[in-house]
Amino acid sequence: MLAFTIAKGKLRRVEKPLPWLRRGWALIRVRLAGICNTDIELLRGYQGFRGIPGHEFVGEVTGVHGVSAAEKEKWLGRRVCGEINVSCSAYGDRSACDLCKRGLKTHCARRTVLGIVAHDGAFAEFLTLPLENLHIIEDSIPDEQAVFVEPLAAACEILEQIDTKLFRDAAILGDGKLAQLIARVLRTALPRVIMYGKHENKLALARQAGIEAKQIPGNLADLKRLKNTFALIVEATGSRAGLALAQQMAEPRGTVVLKSTFHGTAPVETWSIVVKELTVLGSRCGPFREALALLLAGKVDPTPLITSTFPLAKAPSAIRFAQRPGVLKVLLRN
Amino acid sequence: MLAFTIAKGKLRRVEKPLPWLRRGWALIRVRLAGICNTDIELLRGYQGFRGIPGHEFVGEVTGVHGVSAAEKEKWLGRRVCGEINVSCSAYGDRSACDLCKRGLKTHCARRTVLGIVAHDGAFAEFLTLPLENLHIIEDSIPDEQAVFVEPLAAACEILEQIDTKLFRDAAILGDGKLAQLIARVLRTALPRVIMYGKHENKLALARQAGIEAKQIPGNLADLKRLKNTFALIVEATGSRAGLALAQQMAEPRGTVVLKSTFHGTAPVETWSIVVKELTVLGSRCGPFREALALLLAGKVDPTPLITSTFPLAKAPSAIRFAQRPGVLKVLLRN
Repeated sequence: MLAFTIAKGKLRRVEKPLPWLRRGWALIRVRLAGICNTDIELLRGYQGFRGIPGHEFVGEVTGVHGVSAAEKEKWLGRRVCGEINVSCSAYGDRSACDLCKRGLKTHCARRTVLGIVAHDGAFAEFLTLPLENLHIIEDSIPDEQAVFVEPLAAACEILEQIDTKLFRDAAILGDGKLAQLIARVLRTALPRVIMYGKHENKLALARQAGIEAKQIPGNLADLKRLKNTFALIVEATGSRAGLALAQQMAEPRGTVVLKSTFHGTAPVETWSIVVKELTVLGSRCGPFREALALLLAGKVDPTPLITSTFPLAKAPSAIRFAQRPGVLKVLLRN
Repeated sequence: MLAFTIAKGKLRRVEKPLPWLRRGWALIRVRLAGICNTDIELLRGYQGFRGIPGHEFVGEVTGVHGVSAAEKEKWLGRRVCGEINVSCSAYGDRSACDLCKRGLKTHCARRTVLGIVAHDGAFAEFLTLPLENLHIIEDSIPDEQAVFVEPLAAACEILEQIDTKLFRDAAILGDGKLAQLIARVLRTALPRVIMYGKHENKLALARQAGIEAKQIPGNLADLKRLKNTFALIVEATGSRAGLALAQQMAEPRGTVVLKSTFHGTAPVETWSIVVKELTVLGSRCGPFREALALLLAGKVDPTPLITSTFPLAKAPSAIRFAQRPGVLKVLLRN
């Protein structure tokens, strides 16, 4: 099959045999894959990953292995998206770890992660995942929406971690792909969501979805006016400077949700977290079921975020294009 | 009066007039003052403070201003300790800020802080505080315990922020003054508290108080064994490396309480906070009432932490001594 792996900071075209299926796993023909900032961080060395990247996809089940005829019937030919953390319980030869026993499968101590950690991902014609990771997509949800389920679920994770009833509003730092989804998801639960970003075209897109959107202050006087103004801030800039800005904008005893993952360290004035007694919440993968429900109900429409769709064979061009200023979601069609 | 101010990274002896009293404020003759790591950070430039440092004290009320005869009677001659955050409501000429209206006086937007922000502190013969900040000390609590109420309250703050019933144990990083108090306070609420430090004499002191105490791993193999082992970690090393160690030792979805305040930034791999979905809680000043109750009930005895007591006039020597390895609490007697 055609696939792309990471080599020397770039995507390299390779021909690979079809992946081998474990018992209880499915072979999935990728229909659409999304390029995420994490994929760009992987090129820069994040997680030291050398395999096939890509963890946002919608595909079609073309094979299942070692399950009953009824199970086969249920899955074969169905359109699916898939949770990206493969827990140890999905590897039949391993006993479940303590975290899996506690139901924290996304934190499994021995997990692999589709396209990120020790498991080949979606920038390929085919991928494999355990059936327990798959979600069937209702016919009314088009591929162009379904490909967003994984990042949309990551946005929904915030609703699992905080009690939105305690907040009147939220600030989202960043205007990129994930920030846009987070703002839309929080807008379903909060009367006021304000996005702070740097790119006028992206801010305009947020406004079309009922989100207030403003330029991140460029001077100290404007920044000072924003000091201590939000009880809830989501940091999704993907940049080293994001947390520092969030710390400033947060009210004392405020909550800062961290979403950015990038390679390396950020310089953090930890004393201000202490003095303001902030709660900093790391937030990663979330519930696919909630994300699918938002799409099915039409409460969130991610399709305006699609800037461009490339054929899979053009993946190296696509990932270069995805790094241009002003570009939002870039898709690969197989 | 004799006092010491910060000048060029050192304590400088000065003679000052007795401080002027606002309505509802008390003049307090300092009996004992404690040297805290924050005082040492102030010398290094933290908060840009140039006044009289010192925020841990026990003293005697020698004057009150603008209150009823009954109030005067209640306070004059009494032994007190005092909360260090002076909220805007204590300055009669200012209307209360939103944070004070919400009862978050320690986070008042216009607060001064005894010996730290715009208000002279306890490295002097006298200091002033509003009566609303003062707590009368029961006769059975000696000065040498009462001088610890402020840092002990800061340790008690953790019990207000987390639900100890959710945890089986806790790791404390650091073996210094604050870490020792935190370990003792958590030990009143948790069956197992393990301190990780660098100084054998300090670790031995913790063991005498029923706390397990171990060397911070010096090699990678030992460090690896500690990875993901605690659901609750308190970072009280006072060092830039503390948070990184806490992040490693924390279980996925674990809680890291931040107590260290130091001048400058720490390099933080924020991605691991995101990937492990950690909760990082800043924790600062705490409830004096709970600290006094622990002392009164004999549940915590901080006096073994006293390494040495200097006369106030020797404050510069005392603060140099306080920075020597192996030294814990240094007191100034007036």
